[in-house]
Order: sequence, then C-alpha cells, then structure tokens
Amino acid sequence: MEATNLLRQIEFIKEVDKLKYILRKTKLLNSERNENDAEHSWHLALMAIVLAEHANFPIDLLKVIKMLLIHDLVEIDAGDTFIYDTQKNHDNTAEEREAAKRIFGLLPAGQASELIAIWEEFEERQTNEAKFARAMDRLEPLLQNTSNQGGTWAEFGVRYDQVYAKKNVIEQGSTQIWQYAEQLINDSVEKGILKK
Amino acid sequence: MEATNLLRQIEFIKEVDKLKYILRKTKLLNSERNENDAEHSWHLALMAIVLAEHANFPIDLLKVIKMLLIHDLVEIDAGDTFIYDTQKNHDNTAEEREAAKRIFGLLPAGQASELIAIWEEFEERQTNEAKFARAMDRLEPLLQNTSNQGGTWAEFGVRYDQVYAKKNVIEQGSTQIWQYAEQLINDSVEKGILKK
Repeated sequence: MEATNLLRQIEFIKEVDKLKYILRKTKLLNSERNENDAEHSWHLALMAIVLAEHANFPIDLLKVIKMLLIHDLVEIDAGDTFIYDTQKNHDNTAEEREAAKRIFGLLPAGQASELIAIWEEFEERQTNEAKFARAMDRLEPLLQNTSNQGGTWAEFGVRYDQVYAKKNVIEQGSTQIWQYAEQLINDSVEKGILKK
Repeated sequence: MEATNLLRQIEFIKEVDKLKYILRKTKLLNSERNENDAEHSWHLALMAIVLAEHANFPIDLLKVIKMLLIHDLVEIDAGDTFIYDTQKNHDNTAEEREAAKRIFGLLPAGQASELIAIWEEFEERQTNEAKFARAMDRLEPLLQNTSNQGGTWAEFGVRYDQVYAKKNVIEQGSTQIWQYAEQLINDSVEKGILKK
C-alpha cells in the first residue's frame, strides 16, 4: 500500500513542476521579470511563517502553509487570471474545479480529498486560515507594484478604487497588516504611481 | 512593538525576493531551463507534505516545511554550490553562516534566532526533521536528472559512485523513498544516462 502510494505521489510531484512555467502579471521586486506561480507560492508561505503573529485570531499555521503552497496548482490547467480582469471570473471557476480534480486526483484518494478540501477552503475565504492566507496573497503584489513604479497598476491602468477594494480583504486576516497596506496604497497615490 | 516587528518583517520579505534569481545547476523536468532556489524550495516543501507518511519516524511536519522554505536563503549572499563540486565545501561554510546572520538578522530578534536555529538544524542533519528534509533535497534533482537524459550527471561527467554516495542519505529519512531512489539510479545506469 505504502509503495503504491509512493508511485502516485511521485507522479503528482512531477506534474506540479509545471507550476514553474505559469507566469503571473506581477513582476519581481524592482524588476522587469514576471514572477511565476511556484516562486509566488514559496514567497507567500514564507510570509505566513514570518507574519503569523499579526493574524486577527489564532491560526493553524501548517494549514495556512499547505493552502498557500497549493493554492495556484489549478492554474497548471486553467492558467493565471489577472485579479483586475473584469471580463473573467477570477476564482473557483468550473475550469479550476476540473483542474483540481485532475491534478490532486493523481494522489492517493485520501490525500487528494484532503488537498481539494484545503483548496476549496482557501477559495471560500470563510475560515481564519483562509482569511489569513488570502491576506498574504493580496499583500505580496502590493510590495511588488510599489517597488516597480506602479507595476501592473500602471501597465494596465488600474485605479485606486479597484486596488483599495481588492486589498481591503487583508483586513479580514490582519488589521495590523491592513493598516500597513492601506498606508502603502495612500503613499502610492501621493507619489503619483496610483491614480485616483 | 507589533508594528515595529512588522516593519522589520517586511524588510526581510522584500530581501528574500532575491532567492528567485539564484540559479541551480539542475533543470526543470524535461527542460533546458535552470531551476531557481525559490521554485526549488517550494517544490521540496510540497514534496514533504505529500511524502510525510514515508518518514522512518514521526516528524514535526511544520518544522520540516520551515526548514525547506528557508534552507537556501543563505545562497542570496553565498551563491549556489554544485553538490558534486569537489573544490568547494558545500555546506555551512563561514560565508553561509555570515549570510544567515545578515539575512535572518533583518527580522525581530526572537524570530531571527528561531530561523537561524532551524537552518543550523537542517545543516547538521541530526534530527528526524533534518534527515527527512534532506531526503527531499536529494530526491528532487534525481527526478530532474532522470527526466533530462542524465541532466547534470551528463553535463558535468558525474558518475554512479558519486551519485550513489550523495543520494544514499535519503535512507536516513525514509527507507521507502530510498528504495525507490536506488531503483531510479540503477535504471539510469541500465539506460546509459549514468556511467559506472
């Protein structure tokens, strides 16, 4: 049983290598190079470790990290959707659900169910862990865009109201981090890298 | 205090973005593209989640994941050393210890000490968590090289004995995974992509 599990797990481990090719719209800090989903997921998981003390509530850090390490795997099949794309629904589309079934389905059944459940929990944003994980996912591009003279805001003509509305969910995970993020957004307007 | 911590943590989070530029010798699966340390760290952490059941002993999975997410951060200053480089000591050099002090030192003192201790624990390879984490670090390039007609073995003329000696430490973390890895190595000799 263990040996059979291992072969399925190895297939999954090989398949998820493809996440390293999925490019996001955002660029690395002070850079012209697009970030890929694997780097992004690593960064968010490390941020969660470092910032856990600022969560509004007790969190199961291991679960938060699992969420962040797997949250974009569905993009191997479904691709990355830009957060400010108004034409396309960003989250938990039928395409993403199919992708979750296929990719996590490579694993032994019990593990597949566990990871699909964690992915859905992240998407539904109801639990403490999902709220804190989401805060990490919204904070990282803010650091990137502010280091890149507006980054994707400038590139795609994204305005203050849209940014504020998307970033405001950070508050659900951490009031402390939101205060910092709100200040960054306001500073960006003053600097002229984000238009009101 | 919390707010002061946050500013230091943000500085650390920005600094570690540089890990995305540190290239390893190994390439992605079936690919000509070098892997970077951030992608590598993400992959190992996800492998640990998926393969934890095969550890030879109970492990604190959260600690293993922390180890894997931070294990290469010192390479931001010290650079990546090829595992089969016989000219240069691979692990825990004075240069790496200085790097750990500088990079983790960006964090609030308590966190800096915690993460330096975890990094040292990984380097020393004595605890169950360090042994299992090391097994992940040795398994991933094996999957990469066998998918790339020998990959770095072919490129740098690395031979069976050297590979066997380096990979054999997988057994200290998981006998089950080592059996699989040993088979992969032997198959590679049969296929002619690894020379005896």
